[in-house]
Amino acid sequence: MSSSFGKNFVVTTFGESHGAGVGVIVDGVPPGMKLSEEDIQVELDKRRPGTSPFVSPRNEPDKVEILSGTFQGETIGSPIAMLVRNTNARSSDYNNLRDYFRPGHADFSYFKKYGTRPLPGGGRSSARETIGRVAGGAVARVILGSGVVFNSCSMQIGQVKGVTPDWEFAKKHPLRFGDPKFADQAIEEVKAAMQRHDSVGGKIALNIKGVPVGLGDPTFRKLDALLALGIMSIGAVKGIEIGAGFDVCSSYGSKNNDPITEDGFLSNNAGGMLGGISTGQDINLNVALKPTSSIMSAQNTISVDGKNKVIEVAGRHDPCLCPRACVIVEAMAAMVLADLYLGRTARA
Amino acid sequence: MSSSFGKNFVVTTFGESHGAGVGVIVDGVPPGMKLSEEDIQVELDKRRPGTSPFVSPRNEPDKVEILSGTFQGETIGSPIAMLVRNTNARSSDYNNLRDYFRPGHADFSYFKKYGTRPLPGGGRSSARETIGRVAGGAVARVILGSGVVFNSCSMQIGQVKGVTPDWEFAKKHPLRFGDPKFADQAIEEVKAAMQRHDSVGGKIALNIKGVPVGLGDPTFRKLDALLALGIMSIGAVKGIEIGAGFDVCSSYGSKNNDPITEDGFLSNNAGGMLGGISTGQDINLNVALKPTSSIMSAQNTISVDGKNKVIEVAGRHDPCLCPRACVIVEAMAAMVLADLYLGRTARA
Amino acid sequence: MSSSFGKNFVVTTFGESHGAGVGVIVDGVPPGMKLSEEDIQVELDKRRPGTSPFVSPRNEPDKVEILSGTFQGETIGSPIAMLVRNTNARSSDYNNLRDYFRPGHADFSYFKKYGTRPLPGGGRSSARETIGRVAGGAVARVILGSGVVFNSCSMQIGQVKGVTPDWEFAKKHPLRFGDPKFADQAIEEVKAAMQRHDSVGGKIALNIKGVPVGLGDPTFRKLDALLALGIMSIGAVKGIEIGAGFDVCSSYGSKNNDPITEDGFLSNNAGGMLGGISTGQDINLNVALKPTSSIMSAQNTISVDGKNKVIEVAGRHDPCLCPRACVIVEAMAAMVLADLYLGRTARA
Amino acid sequence: MSSSFGKNFVVTTFGESHGAGVGVIVDGVPPGMKLSEEDIQVELDKRRPGTSPFVSPRNEPDKVEILSGTFQGETIGSPIAMLVRNTNARSSDYNNLRDYFRPGHADFSYFKKYGTRPLPGGGRSSARETIGRVAGGAVARVILGSGVVFNSCSMQIGQVKGVTPDWEFAKKHPLRFGDPKFADQAIEEVKAAMQRHDSVGGKIALNIKGVPVGLGDPTFRKLDALLALGIMSIGAVKGIEIGAGFDVCSSYGSKNNDPITEDGFLSNNAGGMLGGISTGQDINLNVALKPTSSIMSAQNTISVDGKNKVIEVAGRHDPCLCPRACVIVEAMAAMVLADLYLGRTARA
Repeated sequence: MSSSFGKNFVVTTFGESHGAGVGVIVDGVPPGMKLSEEDIQVELDKRRPGTSPFVSPRNEPDKVEILSGTFQGETIGSPIAMLVRNTNARSSDYNNLRDYFRPGHADFSYFKKYGTRPLPGGGRSSARETIGRVAGGAVARVILGSGVVFNSCSMQIGQVKGVTPDWEFAKKHPLRFGDPKFADQAIEEVKAAMQRHDSVGGKIALNIKGVPVGLGDPTFRKLDALLALGIMSIGAVKGIEIGAGFDVCSSYGSKNNDPITEDGFLSNNAGGMLGGISTGQDINLNVALKPTSSIMSAQNTISVDGKNKVIEVAGRHDPCLCPRACVIVEAMAAMVLADLYLGRTARA
Repeated sequence: MSSSFGKNFVVTTFGESHGAGVGVIVDGVPPGMKLSEEDIQVELDKRRPGTSPFVSPRNEPDKVEILSGTFQGETIGSPIAMLVRNTNARSSDYNNLRDYFRPGHADFSYFKKYGTRPLPGGGRSSARETIGRVAGGAVARVILGSGVVFNSCSMQIGQVKGVTPDWEFAKKHPLRFGDPKFADQAIEEVKAAMQRHDSVGGKIALNIKGVPVGLGDPTFRKLDALLALGIMSIGAVKGIEIGAGFDVCSSYGSKNNDPITEDGFLSNNAGGMLGGISTGQDINLNVALKPTSSIMSAQNTISVDGKNKVIEVAGRHDPCLCPRACVIVEAMAAMVLADLYLGRTARA
Repeated sequence: MSSSFGKNFVVTTFGESHGAGVGVIVDGVPPGMKLSEEDIQVELDKRRPGTSPFVSPRNEPDKVEILSGTFQGETIGSPIAMLVRNTNARSSDYNNLRDYFRPGHADFSYFKKYGTRPLPGGGRSSARETIGRVAGGAVARVILGSGVVFNSCSMQIGQVKGVTPDWEFAKKHPLRFGDPKFADQAIEEVKAAMQRHDSVGGKIALNIKGVPVGLGDPTFRKLDALLALGIMSIGAVKGIEIGAGFDVCSSYGSKNNDPITEDGFLSNNAGGMLGGISTGQDINLNVALKPTSSIMSAQNTISVDGKNKVIEVAGRHDPCLCPRACVIVEAMAAMVLADLYLGRTARA
Repeated sequence: MSSSFGKNFVVTTFGESHGAGVGVIVDGVPPGMKLSEEDIQVELDKRRPGTSPFVSPRNEPDKVEILSGTFQGETIGSPIAMLVRNTNARSSDYNNLRDYFRPGHADFSYFKKYGTRPLPGGGRSSARETIGRVAGGAVARVILGSGVVFNSCSMQIGQVKGVTPDWEFAKKHPLRFGDPKFADQAIEEVKAAMQRHDSVGGKIALNIKGVPVGLGDPTFRKLDALLALGIMSIGAVKGIEIGAGFDVCSSYGSKNNDPITEDGFLSNNAGGMLGGISTGQDINLNVALKPTSSIMSAQNTISVDGKNKVIEVAGRHDPCLCPRACVIVEAMAAMVLADLYLGRTARA
């Protein structure tokens, strides 16, 4: 199982929901940067469960401890290991699930690959694995500096679509919905699903300002390709599109090419990159998130020994993954950018 | 510039349109497999220019030579190097382009990153780079064996959308359009664009049958993530979606979860993978392709020294990238699967 | 700073002597193997300070905690994170050293590279970093199984050379000296150095039995090359030789080639590998270890701001690194073998 | 089979003696550097067979062709592919060897690993594989610039040992012997072996001047470890020692530590690196080379189907590998340094 991401800025996550804790080693961080547990905690707090009626109520403080890599509040060039203890692991909650594959979950494929029965909390497919990612992303932000600004929001939740994102509005909205005009409708959509014991899909928009020109390679390490790798590696993501995205399918070259002028590009259908290399324009991309797999409605599945069974997945889960996924999408994008940023080499 | 792809099945491409040739080293191929130049050539011929009115007429035979890695028609475990000579390199054609950034091309970002003026043929962003990918994909197919079957077609070209793919029909259609009902309309759409000196975007559908269960890892090397990495690293790709893709945004868990029964899954919204691991179902994904950037219409751009300029990009180019991109998308998917296939380790 | 080792069995260490703890993530371990903290602890206890008059008295229990990757005493395929808390970090001990480069230490080059003043305990050059390696090696042993047996001993300490190793004798000897005939002399050699406030170099012999045939690649990932990489990455190692080693320089082909017969090889000058691939014979190699750099004698050095200075390095340090280095050499060799073992792919 | 070396400066070699040619892709080269085929050829000519009575007479011109990565005599940031055609491949010469394992060769282990019978010319274990390494090293030199100077010579050949190297003398000596006082004896030693149909081992000294301070990492990517990886990956190398090397085993800290003064280090037992990081002093290391395995004397071996057999290996081979190995050792060292040089990242 490959749990490392990146080439120059290398993030290795560990941990399952059922064990002692989850965490991450971040390697490749230059020395001499200010870094404290507070810098990490502020990002972790954004993805923490229990913060609104719409996220799972697992009440864990998720306090991070930096185990290595800093001295007197500064990085020293060493790998930065960070640990978040599990305080709420009750594997008994899950015991009855060890015999069945939850539909839409990794249980089935995990079992086929590793031969392990569904693990309490889902093993490495647990949402808690993303704690390490968010912590890694927080370090990536420090490397990129405050000039690189990440904005993200939900732009669709079920049948409710936003039109124009207001990034600041989204930060305070319980569903992180981006368009104030439709934000209440989005809440109604989720509440209705909760009443039906159902869950809702959604679409996330990510915008990154201040990206330096020249990140990415023309061949296999294109910026778009690495962003796709990182973001598609988040559970529940089923699609990604850059700039104009799938709208390019019905477009024409005369319309889709972004004209260049002395004053810059006249449009940004490219989403901030050309030929796999950042242009200095804003990076824009959208992410498709499937509805939460765990629902309390009756579903057909089979047991580990292959018998038909109808199950309901007990426990409260996020009815819509968008608000927390925004945090993780930002983290993965930050890692990709930091990795490329550190990998720049001087021209001869 | 990172020109290698894969961990266990490692493909390293080289070559530019202006140089002596293009090619690839494929490393990680087990010994004892039948492999001849014919196996490679058959795939290369599918992506070759000049094969229909709708692809660029650069008349190169693109004959592949296997330089290493086989003995008496069998692989020997060594890296397989393959070379295709450029026979039609006329850099003078491009000389007038070295002063300007073609809109929608990598010229601008390439210059900003590497300090090199736009290269004849686009340097590593040349479509000829994909010859190495297709050759690598042909070897990947040999590893996967004939039980893994790749189908691809255009399912949208500009305003014309297909509904139901007929894979065999597509193979013979000059635009590789998948739905016979709309195939003539697709041709009209492209012809109209050509008359306007314009180009057309499109959407590609990829279907893979016979994928073994258990390919992919639960964390960063999810099957979906690696497919996204590989396919988004193809020039002109602006989006990828797996299974139900962006349709999940408006869906609900009760509808989107694929029920499991003693007779298998009842649906395939997941597109053949759960938790990043293949389930044994068909893999289905769609790819958004932007319209060809090179068009003969007037476009605004700037020169290398920053002055406004109106240019037309001379030369004939594919008016729609879909037919040839199908071949490359298949190749990248084959590489990803072969890489994971070779990386399987025995359970303890 | 690259803190990961291996391709298929990936060990990532973290931690400094001055921080909260040291540890490791081991990724690539197959599921279903028995693994407990006791399996790790038994190896850690072998390298622990304070166990004889000849090793540094830093009294830390070095108790390991498995943070992830197991469930009910078995591996689950997930990364195994392990943590050993620092309990004896007294950075004040080192404060007076932050202004000077200790001769023979990494202080000078570390400062030139990272711009950081000598860190308490040496930062990542601390001997405590090797705790992660030993823990990683313990997991590697589990993968290799009990059929692969590691033996190591000191075969030279200063002027005292052994002739014939007795592996069992060595395990109980405080200097891990291998030849009983010279073992008391070795002790006298070390005691004499201690009285002079000096330290002693030594040579380690490593023997591995039961290595499967076929590990290693013919080109850059030769078994010998990977062992050299791993073992030379241990601080204080200044040389490595495989099989007949430097004695081959004065040898002849007719003498050095190991004849092959129906009953096996007639000699083992090759040290268990041919063309970079294991042959199934015992692996034999020797390692040169420099004398401990930290000595309480007066030495010339310069301060961080470049002024001449005479210093003595306070504190008790191992007078000879051999006994503890044996444990680390075994660990690195085990990691290399496990990495290659997991990377085997089926022949087509 | 992993045929790539390096992380930032990535060299991938291909080719066997029996096939169409051998070569290399060098990836990671910055744009804008002068590079011509002549720069490569000058290094290749140093390793070419047939240049003295003491090297194998395979008369191939070994002319290199640059296939990609340059434009008008300058690098463009793209991978540089280089090809050397085989012109002397006569696999019939080897046909009688396909049934037997040559002692000291990779035939045995290769067969056990890959299931392939001994290949004409040894497959990837062929000396011709090193052509790609030497070409890669030539590019590495261009990156390092003329300030980094590589010197190497034979310092021992069989029973004849040199004392003081004269690098310039060695360059013109047919055995590349370094000490003029013993150079004629070295020739006699080799001639005597040739008359006995035997071969001779030797020791190579490598000295590198002008290495920038700060190359290498404190943990697994120590400069010494990477040099060991690269140099031990050369066939026939059985040992490597850095600086004082195995002499440290009998040394003491008070003698071995290199004192530091305002005017620099007072000695260089460390061989130019401390804690795995270059100090700016000369890099010095020695390499043990076994006698050529192919000898025309009778040797015991077994056939592929396990029967005892006495064979003589026909054909002329280098009686001593030292002169050509010097070129390859320099190439591998240059690659390691270029890789680390390109991997430097700015301090925050």
